[in-house]
Amino acid sequence: MTNQQKNDFTSWYIDTIQKADLMDYTPVRGCIAFKPDGYEIWEHIQAEMDRRFKETGHRNAYFPMLIPESFFEKEKDHIEGFSPELPWVTEAAGEKLEERLALRPTSETMVGHLYSDWIKSYRDLPVLINQWANVFRWEKKTLPFIRTSEFLWQEGHTAHVDEEEARAETMQMLNIYKEVVEELLAIPVYDGQKTPSERFAGAVDTYSIEAMMKDGKAVQAGTSHYLGTKFAQAFDIKYLNKENKHEFVHTTSWGTSTRLIGSVIMVHGDEQGLVLPPRVAPTQVVLIPVGPWKKNPEIMERLDKIYAELKAKGIRVRLDDSDQSPGYKFNEWELKGVPVRVELGPRDLENNQAIIKARDEEEKISVDLPTIADCIEGALNTMQTRLLDKARAFREKHSHTHVDSLEQLTQHITDSTENGEIPGWILAGWCGDDACEKQVKEKTKFTTRNIPFNPPATKSTCINCGTEAKYTVWFSRAY
Amino acid sequence: MTNQQKNDFTSWYIDTIQKADLMDYTPVRGCIAFKPDGYEIWEHIQAEMDRRFKETGHRNAYFPMLIPESFFEKEKDHIEGFSPELPWVTEAAGEKLEERLALRPTSETMVGHLYSDWIKSYRDLPVLINQWANVFRWEKKTLPFIRTSEFLWQEGHTAHVDEEEARAETMQMLNIYKEVVEELLAIPVYDGQKTPSERFAGAVDTYSIEAMMKDGKAVQAGTSHYLGTKFAQAFDIKYLNKENKHEFVHTTSWGTSTRLIGSVIMVHGDEQGLVLPPRVAPTQVVLIPVGPWKKNPEIMERLDKIYAELKAKGIRVRLDDSDQSPGYKFNEWELKGVPVRVELGPRDLENNQAIIKARDEEEKISVDLPTIADCIEGALNTMQTRLLDKARAFREKHSHTHVDSLEQLTQHITDSTENGEIPGWILAGWCGDDACEKQVKEKTKFTTRNIPFNPPATKSTCINCGTEAKYTVWFSRAY
Repeated sequence: MTNQQKNDFTSWYIDTIQKADLMDYTPVRGCIAFKPDGYEIWEHIQAEMDRRFKETGHRNAYFPMLIPESFFEKEKDHIEGFSPELPWVTEAAGEKLEERLALRPTSETMVGHLYSDWIKSYRDLPVLINQWANVFRWEKKTLPFIRTSEFLWQEGHTAHVDEEEARAETMQMLNIYKEVVEELLAIPVYDGQKTPSERFAGAVDTYSIEAMMKDGKAVQAGTSHYLGTKFAQAFDIKYLNKENKHEFVHTTSWGTSTRLIGSVIMVHGDEQGLVLPPRVAPTQVVLIPVGPWKKNPEIMERLDKIYAELKAKGIRVRLDDSDQSPGYKFNEWELKGVPVRVELGPRDLENNQAIIKARDEEEKISVDLPTIADCIEGALNTMQTRLLDKARAFREKHSHTHVDSLEQLTQHITDSTENGEIPGWILAGWCGDDACEKQVKEKTKFTTRNIPFNPPATKSTCINCGTEAKYTVWFSRAY
Repeated sequence: MTNQQKNDFTSWYIDTIQKADLMDYTPVRGCIAFKPDGYEIWEHIQAEMDRRFKETGHRNAYFPMLIPESFFEKEKDHIEGFSPELPWVTEAAGEKLEERLALRPTSETMVGHLYSDWIKSYRDLPVLINQWANVFRWEKKTLPFIRTSEFLWQEGHTAHVDEEEARAETMQMLNIYKEVVEELLAIPVYDGQKTPSERFAGAVDTYSIEAMMKDGKAVQAGTSHYLGTKFAQAFDIKYLNKENKHEFVHTTSWGTSTRLIGSVIMVHGDEQGLVLPPRVAPTQVVLIPVGPWKKNPEIMERLDKIYAELKAKGIRVRLDDSDQSPGYKFNEWELKGVPVRVELGPRDLENNQAIIKARDEEEKISVDLPTIADCIEGALNTMQTRLLDKARAFREKHSHTHVDSLEQLTQHITDSTENGEIPGWILAGWCGDDACEKQVKEKTKFTTRNIPFNPPATKSTCINCGTEAKYTVWFSRAY
């Protein structure tokens, strides 16, 4: 935690993404442009997710973006949840439309409509489909990547013969999300179940992975829903079972979005700006000549050689031979979060060495030129692991298990603020009553994140009413 | 050309894509759902295009889908071209918007607005960006994949210091399109320049690749535009040159879309339905046990082995061990356009052989089991080349160079119809006058496709007015 981060995390965040050239604002409210360095992070996330979806038997499809108003009305909870945020197309090609068309906020209704036609028999099941698409939620308060009016995501939509299989799918996809977010983005998450008030509109059960940002707030980094037969009933998705009887399918849906880009910035960034885990960094290594390198052509020759060696290893490398000073370049590439910088000057070359600096460490290290490509590859791998470890340590430090009442929570928040600390997350008991959850939120702005599958402790009394706790829950402020 | 294709090509086409399970209609006018087998063709096209874009220095980005009405008004030709087809968002989150927002038909205006901010100096150039996105054109007459209200595409948007560099980019991208369409989709194309009346709205010059479908109509399979400084002037995109003077950038844009899926079907399909070139087929090889295979477990064992061998070669293979009859399966996989079918029964196994059947050939061939994986790989490669050769032969057969007047064209069309032939394309001279082009269109529905860079002949007189021809042009009916 650094000074600008401490004083005003949001302004640090916006500064960081602008200096790193990841996005730009546009005149359309809450809609951003993803610039190449921002978009490429998404491409790496997409590639990793997509590979795992396909390995587990899913295929991609594409559903229309415009959804007739009448579709939303078929599932009561769904329209209640989404209708306040919908943009509407009301005219096209010079004519007023007979029925308004929503820009999709999610596709359960369109998918439900189509699956009712695609699914006839148990032989057609399971249907395992994913879609990569843009979606719209016209939010009042927006923040680049984290909450935008238009965002990019994937949404999986599957249909199964029974509850058991659908629930297994729900969990499988949550696990894939956890693995990708931890392994690729180096963000540790707690997987668990959402409380009823935080469920997806129309779900029977919602599960999530939750990540802690450097300001202690939570980001819901992915969700997976067991929808039961609710959408099957609303859209009449039935199949003929082996006994020749019609039954409703059990459906699931699951999604992750470009808010993962925001999360990776908020988890790893520091006072110098962006820090990217090597596996998602558009540029993983930058090579910079130092000292009077223009008079020593051997330096560029050697850097060219290193460049080629790294390329051959599949490492995303850039060579900065611009006219700026080394100090200027160091700063510029740090702002961009490039994981590893290599410096080579005349003295280094004489010693048959080069300098390596990892973005998240203070220390520079000397490495022997003959083995430099392997050293850099090793440094990238080490940094990937180290960032996850650091983020995990940060999360443990700011996860509190000593808070057992609303008074203690209020006190904890006051103490944290006075000590210049973040309040972080608290693990607390909950009786299961919506009213208690609501009371905590109103008094402290702490909301339930999820009921973790593997909590670090188990709590016995409800944080609000003090009666027996049915659940042990993460509470925190959240994006 | 087969009977159903001959009698009613459109109904053959719709039949074919439905039997092959590539798409479904939706209640939203002109918007289709891309089912997995249809979408996967697009994924293969995407992968090949994206690789080539990146190899030539382009990076992906993402621009907002909603475009303020005022943006369109900045470039006069552009709004004239697109405004009749735009759908509009007029309300969002329960409130009427102050300014209508169009669903993008293409992104030159949004890109122009942003580039004017991103580009300051010659050091920022060239900007080489591509976007994969959904776009909307509210068309009156729609046809799945070929012309839909919403479609998927890529649009490249580049900015350069001068005309020479921008024109080189325009040509480079047209060449990439030609290569991908010919090599991946096995569709031969003519590359050339569009006449002024067929130019992209707002372009200085538009170039296209044009493909002939089996009904003789043309599909514009990709376009690349040199936009000059028109958008730079409309959106004030200037850079400081090396002499410290402000200059307008020269921009290009280029696009290909999911209509390529429609083209591949219309070029290669036959009376049995879909025929897919191996390189884009979701399933390249299907293995089918025949005869009393359930009593001979060795057959499935051997097929499992072949399956593993093909997988190891990166071939997309499926094993159909369902309970249906072999004849049923043959038909089903033919409808799906699977390039190669392998049959294995007890007698084949005794002879240490299997049967291979390519989708586009009548003949079945016997191959030795020990070398079957290599044989199949060879059959796929051969088929890929053969489909391109067949399509090229078909195109040559239906490309006519003997038509030199409007009377001859009318006669040619009448003769073709009477002989049960398609009129195809004609190569004719054109004086360069819009009025002559218009006259041909009104009388024959033949429009100019492009002025080919490499025409099979050169024509000396205008097909309409008979004066000296400035250009040799392809004319045909078109989608």
